[in-house]
Amino acid sequence: MKVCVVGCGAVGSLFAAHLARSGQHEVWAYDVWKPHVEAIRQRGLRLSGAADFTARLNATSDAAEIPRCDYGIVATKSIHTRSAIAQAARAFDENSAVCSVQNGVGNEELIAEHVKYVIRGTTFPAGHPIEPGHIGYDIKGDTWIGPFEPTNTPMQRVEELAAMLTGSGMNTIPLKDARGAQWTKLIFNASTNPVGALTLLHHGAATFLPPTGQLFRDLIEEGKAVAKALGITLHGEPWDMVMKGANAPGKHKASMLQDVLAKRQTEVDFMNGAIVQWGEKTGVPTPLNKAVWALIKGLERSWEEERESAVGSR
Amino acid sequence: MKVCVVGCGAVGSLFAAHLARSGQHEVWAYDVWKPHVEAIRQRGLRLSGAADFTARLNATSDAAEIPRCDYGIVATKSIHTRSAIAQAARAFDENSAVCSVQNGVGNEELIAEHVKYVIRGTTFPAGHPIEPGHIGYDIKGDTWIGPFEPTNTPMQRVEELAAMLTGSGMNTIPLKDARGAQWTKLIFNASTNPVGALTLLHHGAATFLPPTGQLFRDLIEEGKAVAKALGITLHGEPWDMVMKGANAPGKHKASMLQDVLAKRQTEVDFMNGAIVQWGEKTGVPTPLNKAVWALIKGLERSWEEERESAVGSR
Repeated sequence: MKVCVVGCGAVGSLFAAHLARSGQHEVWAYDVWKPHVEAIRQRGLRLSGAADFTARLNATSDAAEIPRCDYGIVATKSIHTRSAIAQAARAFDENSAVCSVQNGVGNEELIAEHVKYVIRGTTFPAGHPIEPGHIGYDIKGDTWIGPFEPTNTPMQRVEELAAMLTGSGMNTIPLKDARGAQWTKLIFNASTNPVGALTLLHHGAATFLPPTGQLFRDLIEEGKAVAKALGITLHGEPWDMVMKGANAPGKHKASMLQDVLAKRQTEVDFMNGAIVQWGEKTGVPTPLNKAVWALIKGLERSWEEERESAVGSR
Repeated sequence: MKVCVVGCGAVGSLFAAHLARSGQHEVWAYDVWKPHVEAIRQRGLRLSGAADFTARLNATSDAAEIPRCDYGIVATKSIHTRSAIAQAARAFDENSAVCSVQNGVGNEELIAEHVKYVIRGTTFPAGHPIEPGHIGYDIKGDTWIGPFEPTNTPMQRVEELAAMLTGSGMNTIPLKDARGAQWTKLIFNASTNPVGALTLLHHGAATFLPPTGQLFRDLIEEGKAVAKALGITLHGEPWDMVMKGANAPGKHKASMLQDVLAKRQTEVDFMNGAIVQWGEKTGVPTPLNKAVWALIKGLERSWEEERESAVGSR
């Protein structure tokens, strides 16, 4: 099979490296991070941490170089889905299926504007860039995938992709309805990410401080009410994920806190923003999700103000 | 009259300098900021900005030096009220009356633990320290004072203090019930301060960005509902204060944002924390005030984490 990983950052690299190592597939990594692409071309893609190996694969920042692929795996930050899939869509035809393994909800809708068969996905493995061509593999975990409902993706394609991923070492569970797994992680992310980002607390500290721990719970309740109104059966309890993370060793900073520290646009629109929008559609009030969404939007705006001032004072 | 200003930072200095300039009163400034006390002793207390003058007055960091005073004006940050009045209480006897001109609510209760007659107050003038002995006088404005209800302070004492302050150039309105003025400013502060502190946006930017502007309005609605349940008639519309500030020239940073930038404990317990507590007592839900209170508590906790890490790594 030919597979293109669209967005080969930390998470995308975990998928790309495992698939390439299996020797069963022609793997392409597509990313705008040119030093990473160049390093992969010259020395291969190295993972270290939860697994240590280097895999050889194709990598490019030029979508025109990607051949027609059977599968796509989109792993960009949600805020880049729209532009990334617009560029990479030329690699997919009416027999290709493209799977999101991104944070939040709303990515599949954007992919489906360009691709016939779309697969909804949620993934737990996590990593971080160490240097170009080298990714730290921090957390192992499962991936859940299922047809993106509006595209009527055949279940056989979902199962084939799951088997490919599982066979490569990335355990993947095919589901007829992957919304429950996705919303469970969404609700978890929409509590821990903005609170970490606004308080600068690492995950364990925010969980065990009573005021922020309670805010996690209150945000989770709103998310669960929206999921219920949508008829989605959650895949476990988001609070259990909070506690699991809080009890893990180390001081893990939520990805949105990492974005805030780097003054990078966050994924809040695809997390709390999405919960607010689905709440409005289903008539479920989500005042706390709206409040933290507003605060993150304000924080993002402050970086723009800062840049504008810097330009103005030159 | 003998007057002691307890907490002679920016706002306390405005009162102390005006009262001293009038030449009608013996004015004492009590503060733990020793370079400021020393500068006032040597060169007097200088204001510049909305008024420019230097006044001579007594200043000390040793409460034992303060004579018995007729009036006290407490102008510390709310988080220091308890310790400051415990120290300064020896200057007041059963005929003294002590007035809070602080942010938030809950200060009068702490003062009344040490002083017989307490006056509830709210003040609008604002300033900032330029250097020891020199305060920038940023914003002129009125002060509203009234008896703190549980202490049955005679209205005559409220009127006398108001006349002294007005006569010195700090226009002060005596009221039988000053709760409306205090809660109006409280509700204003409890919206603009935590949102500014969490987003790093100056007042105008936060007001005009739609998500944070809406959050201001939503926080204000909760505060108004609590005030209503307490039978308090507000003294104007908090939202009008938001707009007035937003349309003022310059990029004013809320005092809580200034605290956050300096990693100083904030007054959130006396602002949003107080609204939440009064909401619980009156059965009025205040989920948004509770959420921003929790986020500020989390942010304060992150500075402790940082200091603990710094100590640990020495």
